[in-house]
Amino acid sequence: MNTQRFALTPGEPAGIGPDLCLLLASQHQPHPLIAITSCDLLSERAAQLGVDVNLLPVVPGQWPEQPAPAGSLYVWDTPLSAAVTPGVLDKANAAFVLHTLTRAAQGCVDGDFAGMITAPVHKGVINEAGIPFSGHTEFLADLTRTEQVVMMLATRGLRVALVTTHLPLRQVADAITPERLMRVTRILHADLQQKFGIAQPRILVCGLNPHAGEGGHLGHEEIDIIEPTLELLRSEGMDLRGPLPADTLFTPKYLEHCDAVLAMYHDQGLPVLKYKGFGAAVNITLGLPIIRTSVDHGTALDLAGSGKIDTGSLQVALETAYQMAETRL
Amino acid sequence: MNTQRFALTPGEPAGIGPDLCLLLASQHQPHPLIAITSCDLLSERAAQLGVDVNLLPVVPGQWPEQPAPAGSLYVWDTPLSAAVTPGVLDKANAAFVLHTLTRAAQGCVDGDFAGMITAPVHKGVINEAGIPFSGHTEFLADLTRTEQVVMMLATRGLRVALVTTHLPLRQVADAITPERLMRVTRILHADLQQKFGIAQPRILVCGLNPHAGEGGHLGHEEIDIIEPTLELLRSEGMDLRGPLPADTLFTPKYLEHCDAVLAMYHDQGLPVLKYKGFGAAVNITLGLPIIRTSVDHGTALDLAGSGKIDTGSLQVALETAYQMAETRL
Repeated sequence: MNTQRFALTPGEPAGIGPDLCLLLASQHQPHPLIAITSCDLLSERAAQLGVDVNLLPVVPGQWPEQPAPAGSLYVWDTPLSAAVTPGVLDKANAAFVLHTLTRAAQGCVDGDFAGMITAPVHKGVINEAGIPFSGHTEFLADLTRTEQVVMMLATRGLRVALVTTHLPLRQVADAITPERLMRVTRILHADLQQKFGIAQPRILVCGLNPHAGEGGHLGHEEIDIIEPTLELLRSEGMDLRGPLPADTLFTPKYLEHCDAVLAMYHDQGLPVLKYKGFGAAVNITLGLPIIRTSVDHGTALDLAGSGKIDTGSLQVALETAYQMAETRL
Repeated sequence: MNTQRFALTPGEPAGIGPDLCLLLASQHQPHPLIAITSCDLLSERAAQLGVDVNLLPVVPGQWPEQPAPAGSLYVWDTPLSAAVTPGVLDKANAAFVLHTLTRAAQGCVDGDFAGMITAPVHKGVINEAGIPFSGHTEFLADLTRTEQVVMMLATRGLRVALVTTHLPLRQVADAITPERLMRVTRILHADLQQKFGIAQPRILVCGLNPHAGEGGHLGHEEIDIIEPTLELLRSEGMDLRGPLPADTLFTPKYLEHCDAVLAMYHDQGLPVLKYKGFGAAVNITLGLPIIRTSVDHGTALDLAGSGKIDTGSLQVALETAYQMAETRL
């Protein structure tokens, strides 16, 4: 059952997530989009921003079939534990944040939603509240009992997936194992096919070391691990090019002929993507049984309630989720 | 004594270096530019390319005072050891390549040249000839008895210097010591002042770990090493911002207000620079007592003699050397 109805979680209530939802409501969406948060929070923030949004409460079992009119926003009301001052973190609301995520994700699993789009949470305040939490991605992997997920960032014209994500740099080399590289590449390949509709995905793979090891002179992981693993995956029919030097790969000659780049670690792949796509990049979790996209920025506590924010990344996150859901139909 | 006369080394004779020099000769240069290579090699390559360049031999003590006319090229004739076939490496010419570099660098030290511009050499074939050689940079550091040099790449609108360069990734974290970071930052700061004429350079510094360590959650080098070192250098009057997450730093908000980025390692800083500046980037060695710039690409053996090459990077390397020499006057 796929309803093409989407869930939007504003994340940290003291950050810009509520503002983003309210500003977004001025535009018409092609699908019913349901913000999972507190109606009171949205009303207060709307008053602070001086915007007029018509909040339309909805509840499970009585989902809307049509998109809300421009200027309106569907809300699955989810109560706060404490009143919110924009910009001021309060660990009393950590459970509230996780409750909104659980509602969205479980709704995706149950078929109530075709996908979920997330605004930023604040990891620190959730952990301060005594709840171990290392991020949306891990939370959703746990909730859906998914062993391996893959973080991919995308902007118009470029997709970058990562073999390792939030690891200290000194741990990266040891984390590049044949098993991990194989799992991640298979997930990337399968999701490009199934969620992006690319029949034969062309993937460019970075080396781990500078100059992709330069034939073993600058490191051996390419020879010992990456090349044999890619060779094995090619024998399964995957179109993989590499390992290539990262500073060669991110040039038009290569990028024009690829559907995604697979970088070995965070700061090898994401600086180019953020440079190219600033303000219009989206974070996509691959490997989950559900569709989840996210903005690529943080909570921006200092801008909450100011109105000085840009909905560009959220719009790309929405568009991407819609496209992925349509592809998967 | 600064003559504003420049040396150009074509590097590997079987690569595209000779082609670049010949194609460049069609344009008028603002300063006398002297190619240090074999006249025979250039004549043969010109015939292969079907270009007509008037070679003007020059020798020490009788340097030209005026730029060569367009269509002509000054050559300090330096004989090959073996005839050259484009695209075919021959270790017999390894000593020839180093001889051209020595002539150029010693000429800079002696004041015959205001700077040197290098086309690519092939490290492998030089080492095969039994001569230990790890690159132009190290060769020039040795020749000029310089303890620490800094690699910086630049394109129009962006400069990126590196704390570590050609190290396997697993060795990077241990190489980020307070001593190295201090030496490299001081050289970058001093050369931006002295060779680029920037009175108070604004330098953005990357963290080592993703999200610059996120307050210690993703690595401790920022807290233990980078922050205290930057604090110490700030107390000497340097304008240093960071450590910043690399995927935040390379966005317009930050880059608009900086003169250079200091990245901790090769693939953190160079992919963005090459993406932005493809075909028009230049490699600059800071910390040397001489001015040296280089193209940012390799020998491209497969394109030697084909004419299908672009002189963009060499032109930026020349322009940069000219500007640096004028600033230093």
